[in-house]
Amino acid sequence: MPELRKDPVVGRWVIISTERARRPSDFAPDPVRPRASNCVFCEGNEDKTPPEIIASRAAGLGANMPGWRYRVVSNKFPALRVEGDLEPTGEGLYDRMNGVGAHEVVIETPDHAASLATLPVDAVAEVLIAYRERVRDLKKDPRLEYVLIFKNHGEAAGASLEHPHSQLIATPIIPVMVQEELAGSARYFELKERCVWCDVLRQERRDRRRLVMEAHGFTVVAPFAPRFPFETWILPTRHRAAFEDSEVDELRGLAVVLNDFLQRLGVLLGDPPFNYMLHTAPLREPASEQFHWHLEIIPKLARVAGYEWGSGFFINPVPPEDAAAALRDVTIPPAAS
Amino acid sequence: MPELRKDPVVGRWVIISTERARRPSDFAPDPVRPRASNCVFCEGNEDKTPPEIIASRAAGLGANMPGWRYRVVSNKFPALRVEGDLEPTGEGLYDRMNGVGAHEVVIETPDHAASLATLPVDAVAEVLIAYRERVRDLKKDPRLEYVLIFKNHGEAAGASLEHPHSQLIATPIIPVMVQEELAGSARYFELKERCVWCDVLRQERRDRRRLVMEAHGFTVVAPFAPRFPFETWILPTRHRAAFEDSEVDELRGLAVVLNDFLQRLGVLLGDPPFNYMLHTAPLREPASEQFHWHLEIIPKLARVAGYEWGSGFFINPVPPEDAAAALRDVTIPPAAS
Repeated sequence: MPELRKDPVVGRWVIISTERARRPSDFAPDPVRPRASNCVFCEGNEDKTPPEIIASRAAGLGANMPGWRYRVVSNKFPALRVEGDLEPTGEGLYDRMNGVGAHEVVIETPDHAASLATLPVDAVAEVLIAYRERVRDLKKDPRLEYVLIFKNHGEAAGASLEHPHSQLIATPIIPVMVQEELAGSARYFELKERCVWCDVLRQERRDRRRLVMEAHGFTVVAPFAPRFPFETWILPTRHRAAFEDSEVDELRGLAVVLNDFLQRLGVLLGDPPFNYMLHTAPLREPASEQFHWHLEIIPKLARVAGYEWGSGFFINPVPPEDAAAALRDVTIPPAAS
Repeated sequence: MPELRKDPVVGRWVIISTERARRPSDFAPDPVRPRASNCVFCEGNEDKTPPEIIASRAAGLGANMPGWRYRVVSNKFPALRVEGDLEPTGEGLYDRMNGVGAHEVVIETPDHAASLATLPVDAVAEVLIAYRERVRDLKKDPRLEYVLIFKNHGEAAGASLEHPHSQLIATPIIPVMVQEELAGSARYFELKERCVWCDVLRQERRDRRRLVMEAHGFTVVAPFAPRFPFETWILPTRHRAAFEDSEVDELRGLAVVLNDFLQRLGVLLGDPPFNYMLHTAPLREPASEQFHWHLEIIPKLARVAGYEWGSGFFINPVPPEDAAAALRDVTIPPAAS
């Protein structure tokens, strides 16, 4: 029997469609095959990107020159522009404002063929620390209300360049998906005086059917009402509202867990395209008691079609209990890292 | 300068990204190339689908036999099942219920290589009348709250079969996207005592920059804050809440307009993959003064990526004024139909 399941935070219903059930081997995602040639993100092409905002390189080496481990640069084709004021205006019954914000790219490694699954954990940790530094810096701009960090891995996940990179977009508005999480967690807090994600973690760690792993202060879990096959969330096991308040040690723990999880995903599904999105508390009103930051990882294994676009319902052929069991059971080959 | 625009009904913001501006010729969608071979929806294969719920054929011809113009059948791999009760249950802090509902397929024509853009208008009208009949029939089932009619055209739009078809999914819950439209239009009605879509239509018909066409009682318009390049809505020009209350003459008018629009889209973008979704009032509380039914058509020209999934913001490189102008200017070749 297919099942309707409701996300406990935002109230989104999904259809777990057992009639269309699929096993991991039924998916044949476009594997992500890097081909290095004239890549603007590769070492030696530093002059082909906007100048570095921050980077990591050995002392004594000059900015925008080879020898870096990661670089953060402005997006050359930004969705939003840093300059200017919002100038909200009406047009009859419509509202518009200037597209003010920041759009940056984190080039995660000079190695075109590497990934967060294959890089050494120290390098992954450096990328996560770079995320934190950029949020801390952008927080100083009073026009900005939110910084969303995300990653598109593979063409099917929307990546236009193959070289390992993530992005951030900072906006003068809190994105609606974060607003929905804030509203849902506020409703829950009003009722229970507890963080809804802390309660979810407590239940999942006891139940274990949807648990992928727990380590270094982080819990990796298949959500109860996942939109997509093998959707997985990583949360700090203890309550933490704002990602940018993370200590370096915590981010090192996250690096171990993220690297391990992405290896599992790659082994299970054959380096599938995926997106991840970091949901953290808003910059100005952090809702520190009720919000719990988390990383949402969504493999791109199926096309989103008219029903999803028209309804907001998602039809998911893989129960999260099956997804978590398959991810738990993966044996990571020793040569993978 | 990029621009942030807000949808006047649901309040969804989109980024009109002029830095990433693209013209129609910049898109190279996967063209939809039908290849007929062993198609279960083709004439002669009637026994390969579940039995007909309704169909159109000349008098005297038997059901589930050749000679039909359209057929409606149950989906062989339904996302939801007709049998059973909802049985809502809790599991700790989670909620679930049985996946009760209906999932049907409208096989629009026996001609594998045809489409709603190439079929005669009479055949398109028959399909639209079939939609209406199915909604009217499903409305009799008191467990169902909503019927969403949609179409996936082309593999990139999620179609698993090429043969021209649309689908409907009836659910015991009003889908969240319709709920958001209901809530937004109720807020507007409370303030203005007018239907928000009627006001949108008034403004668009006066302004004309986003107008694609007006004919036979329908208005075709590029919405002010479109999520996708060339997103287009078709609305009855006069206030109509429930699609299933349409008269046959109205649906004939819609058939002319839909057929013409899909020809324009095909000529402009080279038979692109697309989805359409029919948003009509809920079955039980039709909100008849404030809701205005409409067909949303979204070509699939770009991948939806991590930022959209994480934020709910959409980045659209084509201003709707440009999209509408390009669609208006298409010359439909006389041989197209």
